[in-house]
Amino acid sequence: MESAAKLSSLQQTYAVIPRVRPHTPLLDAINTPSDLKKFTTAQLINLADELRLFLLYSAGQSGGHFGANLGVVELTIALHYLLDAPQDQIVWDVGHQAYAHKVLTGRRDKLGTIRSKDGLTAFPERAESAYDTFGVGHSSTSISAGLGMSLALRYQGRAQTVACIIGDGAMTGGMAFEAMNDAVQQDADLLVILNDNDMSISCSIGGFSRHLAMLWESGYQVDISDAGEPVLCQRPDMQAFDRRKRHKEMRDVPQLEDNLFKAVGFTYFGPFDGHNVPELLRVLSLAKQVKGPVLVHIYTTKGKGFAPAELDPVGYHAIGKLPIEDDEAKSTEGRVSATNTPKIDIPKADIPKTRPALKYSQVFGQFLCDKAAADDKLLAITPAMEEGSGMIDFAHHFPTRFFDVAIAEQHAVTLAAGMATQGVKPIVAIYSTFLQRGYDQLIHDVALQNLDVTFAIDRAGLVGEDGATHAGVFDFAFLRCVPNMLIAAPKDENECYHLLNTCYEYQGCTAVRYPRGVGTGAIITQPAQTYNIGEAVVEAVLGNDNAPNKLALLAFGTMFATAQQAAQAIANDDSELNAEPDCQVHVVNMRWVKPLDTKLLETLIEQGITHIATLEEHMTMGGAGSAVNEYLLNESLAFKNSRPAVCNIGIADRFIAHGSQAEQWADCGLDVQGVVDQLQNLLS
Amino acid sequence: MESAAKLSSLQQTYAVIPRVRPHTPLLDAINTPSDLKKFTTAQLINLADELRLFLLYSAGQSGGHFGANLGVVELTIALHYLLDAPQDQIVWDVGHQAYAHKVLTGRRDKLGTIRSKDGLTAFPERAESAYDTFGVGHSSTSISAGLGMSLALRYQGRAQTVACIIGDGAMTGGMAFEAMNDAVQQDADLLVILNDNDMSISCSIGGFSRHLAMLWESGYQVDISDAGEPVLCQRPDMQAFDRRKRHKEMRDVPQLEDNLFKAVGFTYFGPFDGHNVPELLRVLSLAKQVKGPVLVHIYTTKGKGFAPAELDPVGYHAIGKLPIEDDEAKSTEGRVSATNTPKIDIPKADIPKTRPALKYSQVFGQFLCDKAAADDKLLAITPAMEEGSGMIDFAHHFPTRFFDVAIAEQHAVTLAAGMATQGVKPIVAIYSTFLQRGYDQLIHDVALQNLDVTFAIDRAGLVGEDGATHAGVFDFAFLRCVPNMLIAAPKDENECYHLLNTCYEYQGCTAVRYPRGVGTGAIITQPAQTYNIGEAVVEAVLGNDNAPNKLALLAFGTMFATAQQAAQAIANDDSELNAEPDCQVHVVNMRWVKPLDTKLLETLIEQGITHIATLEEHMTMGGAGSAVNEYLLNESLAFKNSRPAVCNIGIADRFIAHGSQAEQWADCGLDVQGVVDQLQNLLS
Repeated sequence: MESAAKLSSLQQTYAVIPRVRPHTPLLDAINTPSDLKKFTTAQLINLADELRLFLLYSAGQSGGHFGANLGVVELTIALHYLLDAPQDQIVWDVGHQAYAHKVLTGRRDKLGTIRSKDGLTAFPERAESAYDTFGVGHSSTSISAGLGMSLALRYQGRAQTVACIIGDGAMTGGMAFEAMNDAVQQDADLLVILNDNDMSISCSIGGFSRHLAMLWESGYQVDISDAGEPVLCQRPDMQAFDRRKRHKEMRDVPQLEDNLFKAVGFTYFGPFDGHNVPELLRVLSLAKQVKGPVLVHIYTTKGKGFAPAELDPVGYHAIGKLPIEDDEAKSTEGRVSATNTPKIDIPKADIPKTRPALKYSQVFGQFLCDKAAADDKLLAITPAMEEGSGMIDFAHHFPTRFFDVAIAEQHAVTLAAGMATQGVKPIVAIYSTFLQRGYDQLIHDVALQNLDVTFAIDRAGLVGEDGATHAGVFDFAFLRCVPNMLIAAPKDENECYHLLNTCYEYQGCTAVRYPRGVGTGAIITQPAQTYNIGEAVVEAVLGNDNAPNKLALLAFGTMFATAQQAAQAIANDDSELNAEPDCQVHVVNMRWVKPLDTKLLETLIEQGITHIATLEEHMTMGGAGSAVNEYLLNESLAFKNSRPAVCNIGIADRFIAHGSQAEQWADCGLDVQGVVDQLQNLLS
Repeated sequence: MESAAKLSSLQQTYAVIPRVRPHTPLLDAINTPSDLKKFTTAQLINLADELRLFLLYSAGQSGGHFGANLGVVELTIALHYLLDAPQDQIVWDVGHQAYAHKVLTGRRDKLGTIRSKDGLTAFPERAESAYDTFGVGHSSTSISAGLGMSLALRYQGRAQTVACIIGDGAMTGGMAFEAMNDAVQQDADLLVILNDNDMSISCSIGGFSRHLAMLWESGYQVDISDAGEPVLCQRPDMQAFDRRKRHKEMRDVPQLEDNLFKAVGFTYFGPFDGHNVPELLRVLSLAKQVKGPVLVHIYTTKGKGFAPAELDPVGYHAIGKLPIEDDEAKSTEGRVSATNTPKIDIPKADIPKTRPALKYSQVFGQFLCDKAAADDKLLAITPAMEEGSGMIDFAHHFPTRFFDVAIAEQHAVTLAAGMATQGVKPIVAIYSTFLQRGYDQLIHDVALQNLDVTFAIDRAGLVGEDGATHAGVFDFAFLRCVPNMLIAAPKDENECYHLLNTCYEYQGCTAVRYPRGVGTGAIITQPAQTYNIGEAVVEAVLGNDNAPNKLALLAFGTMFATAQQAAQAIANDDSELNAEPDCQVHVVNMRWVKPLDTKLLETLIEQGITHIATLEEHMTMGGAGSAVNEYLLNESLAFKNSRPAVCNIGIADRFIAHGSQAEQWADCGLDVQGVVDQLQNLLS
C-alpha cells in the first residue's frame, strides 16, 4: 500500500495548456489497449501523466469537453489494463468522459478532429469504433445499456465483463434507479463504477448528492477483501479531495448506515481514490470477480491535473479552441463554461461590436428577470441546466423562485404541473432533446389538464458539434399532435422575448422554441408585448407584382433570416445563386406552429399565390410544413380552387452528424443556397 | 394501543359481492369530508366496513378497479379525517385507488357511473372535483406533483398539507426517485405515504421490492414519537400480513440498516398496519407535523375485506360488471384479471362461437411463443405488463428469455438496445402511451444506433373506459419523424402476426402498432410470412368502373374494417347511410405508415383516382395521413398533374374522454357512419 501511495504521487499538475505536441513515448506505444498490458504499474502512472498532458494539448487544438476527461484518466487506464476490450464491454455514461478512452483505443492521432465535420464524435459512437460499445448523448443510460449487454451475454453463455461508468450527476436521472432495481432482480453480473466528482455539469444536488457526501463524511470505507468480500474500515487519508460541505442539513454525526446502493441490493465498495492507479487496479480487479451487481464508488477531481480547471471545474467543463496567434500566457483564454456561455464558441468576428448579438438563452434569461420583477407568480424550473439555459442571473436575483431539480426531466415537467395547480405560473426551461425525456408527463400532467405551464425550449434545431443526439429536430412533430398545446417559434431575439411574454401571459400550456447560439442582433424592445395568438406576419414582398410566379415562403422560427436571403435571391434573379427570374416572393414570418395562421394562408392564395414553400429547421416529416399541408388539403377553399404547388423544406429523414451548425445546415440544404435550390426546383 | 387493536378487529371480510345496495347509514351521512370529522374512532372503523361493502356492491354494478380500492379504505378515511381537503392536497398515484376517495368527497351516488360515457372517470380528474387535486393515468407521478404543490404553497406562504399516496409498484418508476431526490434538496414539507401491498399490478420486482421485504423481515419498526421523532422498536404483531418470501437471495439475517428512504434524505416511519384505523390516525397526525419530507410506510392487503380478492389479488385487480340475471352464487364470475385478459370485457355476443376472435395481445403472445421456439435469438421485455401484453405463456415456456423490468419504461427501451448490441433480437412489448415514457431512449439508444429492436405497441388508438390518459393516439406522430424507424399497422389478427414476424426479421428498429381488444376473427395462417416492407394492398375495388368519382380510401391499421364498410355504403349508394352514388372506391390496406407505399399511390392517381381519403385511429395532426400529404404535395408527379381532392380522417385536436370504444369512435367520427359522412363531404 505504501509503495502504491508513493507511486501514485508521481502525478503532476499543469498550469498551462501546451501549444506543442508534448513528448509522450509511453502513450505513443499504445495502438490498442492490449499494448497497455505490458506496462508496469509505475509505467501506468507515468502513462497517466502523458495522457493527461496529451488531452490538454489536444483540447487546446480542437476545443471540447475537458474537465470530465481529465478526471477519468487513471480510471480509463485501469479499466483498459484490467479488461479485454472490445470483448469486455466498457459503457460510458453521458460520454463527456470518453476522450482518454478514444486515445487508448486507436484514435490518438485523430483526437484533434473531435467535434469537427467528419472528425471523431464528442461521445462514444458505435459506428466509430468497436471499443465504443454504446452511443450516448443524454445521461443516465449506462446501467440500462450495460445490463442489457450483461443479460444478453449470460443468455448466450458468453463470459465477458460489462463495466458501466456513471457520474454522480447522471445518477439523479430516474432511469439509473430503474436499471439498478432491475439489475438486482436479474442478479446480473454487472460492474458499475460511480465516478463521484461531487458535481454534474454545475453541481449535483438533492438527496442523492447529500447521500454521497454523507458516505464521504463518515470517514469510513467499505473496502474489498481478497475474497471479494466487503470489509468496513477507516478510510485512508485522501487529502487531495476537498469535499465541500454544501449540505447544510447534513446530520451532525455522519453515519455509514443507510447506504442507498446496498439498500437497493447492490454489493457496494468505496469510496476509493479514483486517481490512485495501484488502488484502482487492486479494487477493480477484485470487484470484477464478484458475482451479481456490484458498485464501486470512486472519488475523482474534475479537471484533475490542470490547476485552473481544478479550481473552477464548472468553468472548465469544456474549453474552446486556443487562438493560434495568442501567446502561451493567455492559454486559459480558450475556456468556455459548462454549457456554452457567450464567451467563446462562435468566432468573435461574427459579432458586431456595436450591437452585440445575444444568445437565445440570454434572451430567455433577460425575459425571466424582467418578468419576475413584474409578476410574483413566475417560478422557473431547470433540469440541471441553470447556466446553459441562461438562468444564472435569475437564480441570483430570485433564489426562492428558481428550482434546479437536477438531471430529472420527467420530474421537472410534472413538478411544474403540480405548481400550476396552486395558482402560480411555472416556466420550464428545457433543451428540445431533453424534453423527449418528459414527453409523457407533458401530455398527461400538463396538456391533458391544460395547466398553465410555459415551456421555454432551447437548443431546438441543429446544434453543431454535439451532433445528432443533441439535435432538437423532433419537437414540432411530438408537440403538435398534443391537444391544448400552443407552439411558437420566434424569428429573432426580439420576437423571442415577446413570444415568451405572450405565451407566459396565456392561460394554458405553451411552448416557445428557439435555437442554440446567437440571433441576428435584433434589439429587444420594451415594454414586453403580447402578440395575437396564431397570427403570422408578411414581413416583405419582394419582386415584381406582375411576375408570373408568386411564391409564399412560409418561414418558421429562425429560418426566417435564411428565407429572407433566399427570397432576395429568387426575386432579384441573383445570377450568382442561379435564382429564378420573374418571381414575386411573399416572405412570411409564421411565428406560430400551432395554431397556424390559416386566415393568412387563405388570403395569400386568394390573392394569387402560385407556389407555397414551408421552411423549418426540423424534420420534414410531421413538422410545421405538415401542419400547412393538412390545412391546405383538408380545409382551404382557396387551395381547392387555385391549387398552388407546395414544397416542404426541412430536414430529410436521416440523423445529421456533428459539424458546425453552418456545415450541418449546408448538409441538410438549409443554408441559403440549399433553400434557393429547393425553391427553384419548386418554381420550375 | 390495546383498545385500538381491539377496535381494529371489528373489520369484516366478505365472500360475495352484494347485489343489492347495502345498508350504510354512516356512509350515507357523509356528503363532504367534513362530515367525517364528527365521527368517533369506533364509528370510523364501522364506516370502513360500510365503505368496503359499498365499493363491493358498486364494483359489481359498474365493473372497474377493485383490489387497490379495497386496500386503501382505512387510509382514505384516516386521511380525510385528519386533513382538510380540498385545502389540504391529497395526491393519489396511478389513481386506481381513488374510488373510496370519490365516495367520501360527494360522489357516492355517482360511483355506479364510473368509466361510463359522461360518468365518473376511473381516476382522479381535476375537472370532476375540487378534491381531485391531480389527474393521473400513468404511475409514479404523485411525488413530483405533490412536491410542486408544496413548493408553490410555501412560496405563497400558504400552510396547507400535501399528502401523496404511492404504491410500491409505482415506486420503481424512476421519476419517483427523481422527485424524492428533489424533495430533499428543497427540504419541502411533504408527506409521502408508501402503500406497500407487496405488488404492483402483477407483482413488484427488483431491488426495491426486495428492500421493502427486508424492512418487513427485520421485525423492527421505526415508530413515531409524540414529538415526531423516529423511535426504533420491535414491530407489533401483524399476523394479517402474510408476506411471501419471494426474494430468495435475501440475506439470512434481515437487517434494518441501509434504509433507502433515509439514505435519500427522507424521514422514515414504518412499517405500520394500513388497515388499523386508530394506528393510522395516530401515526399520520404526528407525521403531518414533521418538517421536511417524510415517508410513512404502511402495509396493506390488496382486495382487503373480500376473501376471493385477498386470495388472488392479481386476478381481482379489476372486475367486470356482474351479469344481471345470474344468481348470487356466481357473483365472482364478473372478475377480470389485471389487465383485461379475454374473460369479460367485451360482450360475449360479439364473439362468434365458431371462430373465437382473439385479442391482439393474444396474437402477440402466440407470435412470441411460435417465434421463440424457432429462433433462439428472441428475447422479450415488458415494463410490468406481462399479463396485459399477452406474455403469460411466453414467460412460462421461455423463462430465461422473458424480462419483466417493473414499471420502468425508460429502462425497458435502453435495456433492449443494450441487448441488441450483443447479437440477440429483443422485442419490447409496450402500450402506446407507455412508450411516451421511453421516447428519448427510443430515439437515442435504438433508432440513432439503428439497433435491431422490435417494438410491439399494444393499446394503440382509443382504449375505452380508461379514457384520455390511456389513448394511444400520438404514436404515429412521435415515431414517424424518427429516422430508421419502420412503422407497421396491421388490419387484423392475421396481418398482425405476420407483420410482427416481418418486423422481427428485419435487421433494424421497427414498430408494429395494434389496438386494445379483439380483432375481426381472422384466422392466423401458418407458417409465418414476411411481407414486403412498405407494400400496401388494394383489398377491394367497389362500385362502377365508369363512376365519375373514383375514391382511394387509404386505411391504416384496424380502421381497415371500418373503411370496408364505409366503402360499401359509398359505392352501393346505401340509402340508409345516405351515401354518395356513382362512386367507385378502391379500399386500400396501407399496412405500413413508414415507409409509405408511394408507388401504389402514384399508380392509383395515374389510373384516374379523383379523391383520396386517409383513415386512421390517431390524431389527424402529424399522423399517417400527414405522411400521405407530404408525399403527394412534395413528390408525386401524378398528383401534380391530376390533383385529386384529399381528406385526412382521424381524431381532431382534442382529448377524447372515457366511454366504450364504440362510443369514443362515434364521438370522433371514426365509426362507419362518421367515416361515410366525411367521405361524402369530400366527394361533394
